[in-house]
Amino acid sequence: MPVSGHSFIAGVSVAGEGATFHGIEAASGALLQPAFHAVSPAQVEAALVAAAAAAGYLAGSAPASRAQLLEAMADRIIDLGDVLIDRAMAETGLPRGRLAGERMRTANQLRLFARTLREGDFAGVRIDRADPARPAGPKPDLRLVMRALGPVAVFGASNFPLAFSVAGGDTSSALAAGCPVVVKGHPAHPGTAELVAGALCQAVADCGFPAGTFALLQDDGIGVGQALVADTRIKAVGFTGSRRAGEALAVIAASRPEPIPVYAEMSATNPVILLPARLEEAAETIAASFVASLTLGSGQFCTNPGLLLAIAGPDCDRFIAAVKTAIAAWAPGVMLTPGICQNFASVAEAIGAVPGVTCVAESETAPGRAGARLFTASAATYLANRQLHAEMFGPAALLVQCADAAELAQVLAAVEGQLTVAVHFADADHGLVRDLLPLAMDRAGRVLANGFGTGVEVSPAMVHGGPYPATTDSRTTSVGTLAIDRFLRPICLQDFPEDLLPQSLTDANAWDLPRKIWE
Amino acid sequence: MPVSGHSFIAGVSVAGEGATFHGIEAASGALLQPAFHAVSPAQVEAALVAAAAAAGYLAGSAPASRAQLLEAMADRIIDLGDVLIDRAMAETGLPRGRLAGERMRTANQLRLFARTLREGDFAGVRIDRADPARPAGPKPDLRLVMRALGPVAVFGASNFPLAFSVAGGDTSSALAAGCPVVVKGHPAHPGTAELVAGALCQAVADCGFPAGTFALLQDDGIGVGQALVADTRIKAVGFTGSRRAGEALAVIAASRPEPIPVYAEMSATNPVILLPARLEEAAETIAASFVASLTLGSGQFCTNPGLLLAIAGPDCDRFIAAVKTAIAAWAPGVMLTPGICQNFASVAEAIGAVPGVTCVAESETAPGRAGARLFTASAATYLANRQLHAEMFGPAALLVQCADAAELAQVLAAVEGQLTVAVHFADADHGLVRDLLPLAMDRAGRVLANGFGTGVEVSPAMVHGGPYPATTDSRTTSVGTLAIDRFLRPICLQDFPEDLLPQSLTDANAWDLPRKIWE
Repeated sequence: MPVSGHSFIAGVSVAGEGATFHGIEAASGALLQPAFHAVSPAQVEAALVAAAAAAGYLAGSAPASRAQLLEAMADRIIDLGDVLIDRAMAETGLPRGRLAGERMRTANQLRLFARTLREGDFAGVRIDRADPARPAGPKPDLRLVMRALGPVAVFGASNFPLAFSVAGGDTSSALAAGCPVVVKGHPAHPGTAELVAGALCQAVADCGFPAGTFALLQDDGIGVGQALVADTRIKAVGFTGSRRAGEALAVIAASRPEPIPVYAEMSATNPVILLPARLEEAAETIAASFVASLTLGSGQFCTNPGLLLAIAGPDCDRFIAAVKTAIAAWAPGVMLTPGICQNFASVAEAIGAVPGVTCVAESETAPGRAGARLFTASAATYLANRQLHAEMFGPAALLVQCADAAELAQVLAAVEGQLTVAVHFADADHGLVRDLLPLAMDRAGRVLANGFGTGVEVSPAMVHGGPYPATTDSRTTSVGTLAIDRFLRPICLQDFPEDLLPQSLTDANAWDLPRKIWE
Repeated sequence: MPVSGHSFIAGVSVAGEGATFHGIEAASGALLQPAFHAVSPAQVEAALVAAAAAAGYLAGSAPASRAQLLEAMADRIIDLGDVLIDRAMAETGLPRGRLAGERMRTANQLRLFARTLREGDFAGVRIDRADPARPAGPKPDLRLVMRALGPVAVFGASNFPLAFSVAGGDTSSALAAGCPVVVKGHPAHPGTAELVAGALCQAVADCGFPAGTFALLQDDGIGVGQALVADTRIKAVGFTGSRRAGEALAVIAASRPEPIPVYAEMSATNPVILLPARLEEAAETIAASFVASLTLGSGQFCTNPGLLLAIAGPDCDRFIAAVKTAIAAWAPGVMLTPGICQNFASVAEAIGAVPGVTCVAESETAPGRAGARLFTASAATYLANRQLHAEMFGPAALLVQCADAAELAQVLAAVEGQLTVAVHFADADHGLVRDLLPLAMDRAGRVLANGFGTGVEVSPAMVHGGPYPATTDSRTTSVGTLAIDRFLRPICLQDFPEDLLPQSLTDANAWDLPRKIWE
């Protein structure tokens, strides 16, 4: 299955009718073949017509049949073999091992949602039986089930070309919920996107689902994405990317005649708190782990540790010295796109130029590569400069040196909403942890003990979300099985006879869903 | 406990420092004593400081202790006795029996949330245990729990001065979730609001909760409400009222540096579908039930049946004739406020003036009273005039006469998002019901068989919500125990030792919460 430069609309591989663009080899900046073409407005319309036509089928389909679809999708992605890995390596500059692991994660994520469908808790069935003889008046028969919202627009991320893109967490959770998906392909990996979309469309056809179940629309501009979010047939949006782009989509969604939810995962500095007793016993060990996390994938993770909080003093100085050594040994990294690389360089330079900020550790740099850096600042400097609160997308972090634990708590209270907060502590720090934990839970979706946020487990208990601007909706997660809830809403059926109830709500319980019943 | 004209801030009954206003006797338009005073910006600030200070305590409190608080609130409201009913009757014009029933509903709703807290499912605890030896790499210990969002601003409705106001569904579900509540009192029943707030503050003090757990801010303008929604300490908004006011609050919430969720229940016409076989067998019976529902509480229900869909013909004509008789026998009703009464009269007059619309049934009217009406229009007229899609808040409905079932489905597909859709059918209509049910579920939060939406059961399986503009967030309900979910977000704790975990997540499970565990 070679790359042809196509989109997928209503299950068919078609050339876009719009402007031409190319994938770019991340390591060299060279154009990759073949050319891609953005889709035209008429092609966007065709994709939306097909998605809307498929919505009723999907919303009413048995969870087990959607589970089969997701498993077939996983199998077809694996079947793509090295063609997929080779293309993704070229387009993203990520190494083979990382992409092979990400492919497995992507397939397992689809399979995990299949299991979630078979377990059935997502449907949230509640049955409250009638009581015609109730003294206060007849009580009706009420039955509640979670139902699919309708077609979902998905915007993939550049930094996970498989696990957060065409068949990533948003797509798999939306399909699991019973929503058709229209993906706006990320222009940083159009060939990877096309290959995966082909696998998904094959699975849709094999499983007998409607052709509008899935579409991939290629575009290297913003017009197609804006048109999707503005269209009345789209009922929710999943997005992973920059704060600017996420906020722009949220504004479009809120301005519609019928506003819709936007689940945008956007921006975080993921504070790492280094408490004194732990720093005293293991400053060098933590420094090594920190630099490994900071530079993993050239620092291009949503959960990259971009902010450190510690109490100034000799142990903090030991930590800085060890970071300096580790960072100096790091070979400058390829970044996902030339644009991301340039942006990182200018953001890091701007941070370094803020009065009161010092660059205390720096790796080599090379043309078109990202160098790693650690900056330091006082708590007063951090609190006074909002610029220091913004994410640096790449291998750079800022260490805020606080006078004492009270000032550290003050800094933690001042950070914006986060995906993660990590706390490093020894036994003697437990009292401080107790004080800080409520604050950390207020600021983030996930709080870690003695670790780093990179490495997001796909699990029923994962939360990859958090208060604004980490995401646009702190009530949700974009990783883990709870992500399916984003694409469902409750519906109540009152007093319907058994033979007219949806399958999910009949007394016969043909789909064998778990249910809470009030007699 | 007489009415003093006060607000409640940080648990203390205080006179507002702003402009003076009065409650108004609904039946006469006379001013009620004593005078009320709007709170000042400094008093709003004081309420927010107290709410923010209470947030950590509430979020970390044991579900069982919040259950006790809610039960004490229910008891203190009942303890108010006839003073409450008498004041509410004067301010709203609603009859004694209705208000006594609503008081019981309000108390039972608080007790139902107490039961929900004791059952513990709301906490959604998920534990995914560590596996340090996993071949693909060590698996962390992950524990998820639903946590309170923080202080919530609540805007009560005029039409339920008890059950959707100071101690209504929004307040009880937010407190149950562990969120402090700041109520902006509805100026249509300030004395009722003060009495109930006094009962709640007494319960807060008796149960040892922080003084900032609950506040009531009186205001007859929009400034206090706008200030609440714009303030960074408020983390969510519950609202029941007009579409215009709900949308204005949603705009403020979306424009904040950190946008917050707004749960506004705003506007619905609640389509009632009359299928042919049922109309043939019982046109007169349905007409009587319909007029009873239409005129209940002078038509001032969110779920009032404001739109009827039927196939034109002799049975439809029988229905109209029976409605005409029943409406003619209705004595014009007192409305909640003079403003609502005037607004209803002008909206109904405007609907009647639309070309193609005919007034086919009309009760007597009287000065300051609402007359009941039934209008008819063709499907073509309805589809062509958006004005006919708007809610008439009062005892008036529009019957859309369709040529056939296909046209009826077309009309149903064109209605805006609804709280309820009701379908009246006989056995011979089952095929039509099967065709229409997916469409009805797409348009509404609740679909009823052979009934009317008025009478909203407070139940674990109730959905009082629906697609925009019925509400601003179709993923939620404002009635029933699922309403608690609106004020919670998931948080994940990773790799914390037992003695540092929040009580909700320890292996010891001191709060005895139900939990799903993956070993």
